[in-house]
Amino acid sequence: MRMRAAVLEEFGAPLAVQEIDLADPKPGEVLVRLVACGVCHTDVYTASGADPSGYAPAVLGHEGAGVVEAIGEGVKDVKPGDHVVTLFSPQCRECEHCRSPRTNLCLAIREQQNKGFLPDGTPRLSRDGEPIRHFMGTSTFAEYTVMPEIALAKVPEEAPLDRCALFACGLSTGLGAAMFTAKVEAGSTCVVFGAGMVGLGAVAGARLQGAERIICVDLSEDRLELARGQGATDTWIGGEETVQRVLDETRGFGADYTFEATGNVKVMRQAVESARMGWGLCTVAGVAGKGETLEMVPRFLITGRRVCGSSFGGVKGRDQVPQLVQRYLDGDLDVDPFISHRITLDEVNHGFELMERQDGIRSVIEF
Amino acid sequence: MRMRAAVLEEFGAPLAVQEIDLADPKPGEVLVRLVACGVCHTDVYTASGADPSGYAPAVLGHEGAGVVEAIGEGVKDVKPGDHVVTLFSPQCRECEHCRSPRTNLCLAIREQQNKGFLPDGTPRLSRDGEPIRHFMGTSTFAEYTVMPEIALAKVPEEAPLDRCALFACGLSTGLGAAMFTAKVEAGSTCVVFGAGMVGLGAVAGARLQGAERIICVDLSEDRLELARGQGATDTWIGGEETVQRVLDETRGFGADYTFEATGNVKVMRQAVESARMGWGLCTVAGVAGKGETLEMVPRFLITGRRVCGSSFGGVKGRDQVPQLVQRYLDGDLDVDPFISHRITLDEVNHGFELMERQDGIRSVIEF
Repeated sequence: MRMRAAVLEEFGAPLAVQEIDLADPKPGEVLVRLVACGVCHTDVYTASGADPSGYAPAVLGHEGAGVVEAIGEGVKDVKPGDHVVTLFSPQCRECEHCRSPRTNLCLAIREQQNKGFLPDGTPRLSRDGEPIRHFMGTSTFAEYTVMPEIALAKVPEEAPLDRCALFACGLSTGLGAAMFTAKVEAGSTCVVFGAGMVGLGAVAGARLQGAERIICVDLSEDRLELARGQGATDTWIGGEETVQRVLDETRGFGADYTFEATGNVKVMRQAVESARMGWGLCTVAGVAGKGETLEMVPRFLITGRRVCGSSFGGVKGRDQVPQLVQRYLDGDLDVDPFISHRITLDEVNHGFELMERQDGIRSVIEF
Repeated sequence: MRMRAAVLEEFGAPLAVQEIDLADPKPGEVLVRLVACGVCHTDVYTASGADPSGYAPAVLGHEGAGVVEAIGEGVKDVKPGDHVVTLFSPQCRECEHCRSPRTNLCLAIREQQNKGFLPDGTPRLSRDGEPIRHFMGTSTFAEYTVMPEIALAKVPEEAPLDRCALFACGLSTGLGAAMFTAKVEAGSTCVVFGAGMVGLGAVAGARLQGAERIICVDLSEDRLELARGQGATDTWIGGEETVQRVLDETRGFGADYTFEATGNVKVMRQAVESARMGWGLCTVAGVAGKGETLEMVPRFLITGRRVCGSSFGGVKGRDQVPQLVQRYLDGDLDVDPFISHRITLDEVNHGFELMERQDGIRSVIEF
């Protein structure tokens, strides 16, 4: 079929919205009509050429939600008409990792996905017979996409798909970092560094876990206002003195849980050093630049701090994204404030600009 | 009373063994006659002047075991004749940390201990009326010491005190890193970097936890031979290629648990990078040099590796040192091979030299 999509033709150049071809779903695959897709930092990062594993031409986009249009042979868990969230982090439920409660990093299609192909090693995207590669297994900057069944989470139909799209990446990453990776305990003190989509999700996740005190640190008063709306009890403009301020406010101990959601390695170090002696856990959710390293003074570890990371919030997508969406439907989560701009597919490069100048939390493409 | 002790008079100079004065135990304190004391790296480190928090004059030594000679007012848990292991990491059983299962870092006497005093803010050590400070709250390079009751672990009398001394620091640190900090699961794969006292203890701890594969990495074939005796299933001479070798041997995943017991920050980085994607836990037990930092590529965290540290192996001393000694009495632990040299107090500087040239695992002073 023919469809419109935003193609990364060349690193550093604007995406080119154009008509391209999409092949039918093969066995185990699903044709999804996109209804909404968020513009996420990873899209911008890849388009810029900064990601060493990036490739072109490819259709970007990964924070998508839509409706199943058709299914390939053997697909069992979704049927035409179902509402779905796309999962760049799939869940096959069969591999060594899916069978372990300790990780959400499904191994089933990792290799082909990283190369830009569907599980059989070929793309469904093409133009004039020339293949175009998929991005993150999703390619949701497009009217339609073909994805493996294991990379789709079926969500309740009463949840608006524009809101659902945020659960495809940023929001689930933040919520999950607090709920599934760190498993924040009720009554604890948390510090969240960064109040973008992931940081705000972590604030909300810490609140859902019953944290008593949630300090959110950012450079923007506007974003900190949003953090208060998600449950932050204290909001601070960050700076060199942030670690000392955390210590001063916690009887010199540090916070039970800290979350890093900026991708800045200096902030990561602050997040480590703000964690409580004895048992503080620092969860890194931000993606650092190429070649950058987090410098840690080993003494912080020896005295009981722990450091971990979170990819897609530790969320096992097919099982847990629907549960998170349900929390939204139950009124536990206020998702609306995250959608700062609504744009069309033709305006995708404008969405990139908004993200680059940190204007708002999320631009959502509506198809 | 008068007694002989090894005094650090000046950083970088040999310890001076001499007669000094020891005051009677005050309330809550205990007079211990030392029977054995290991020479540990921390003693050498402090004597050298490299530790920025070091002070002199002080009586060094912290890996001690002996017999209770007299008790101060209110002491309940030990009585004259009891065999005890000295604890630089005390356990008051009452502070916020002692009441938590998450940490062994007792807060009760921390501040005064770090300054070289007993809990009331004064020393019991003196010479010609001039105070001499305690070291690590223990000062066991001496015929006698006065210590708070909360810093003594009562051990079974059938356990030889020379072997018990090793449980006062290095051996418990290694055992505990595997058993209490990392909580190694049965059937797992472990890599232990360093086959000194702490690393060998970690090998033994991993074995006691039922690890299936225990790879020990060191630069000395002699130490690796000892590691095999403690249960290492694979022993490797370490190098630049160690991380890749771990990956090659673990289907590209890395090890479930890694332990760092060298204090070298480059090795710490290897330990992080050798940990398994998804859930690998790197436990840092070595003490890095002043100002050195562990550099970590954040991607290793995001893809599921975790990093923590271990002080005294996470062992809650009064409760758990006796349990570890019991494992020795039960035949679960082979402690004898760790004692490489037996020396007198007058030979303490020789013990330092042996440690500096990495000759053997432990020199034990016998009084």
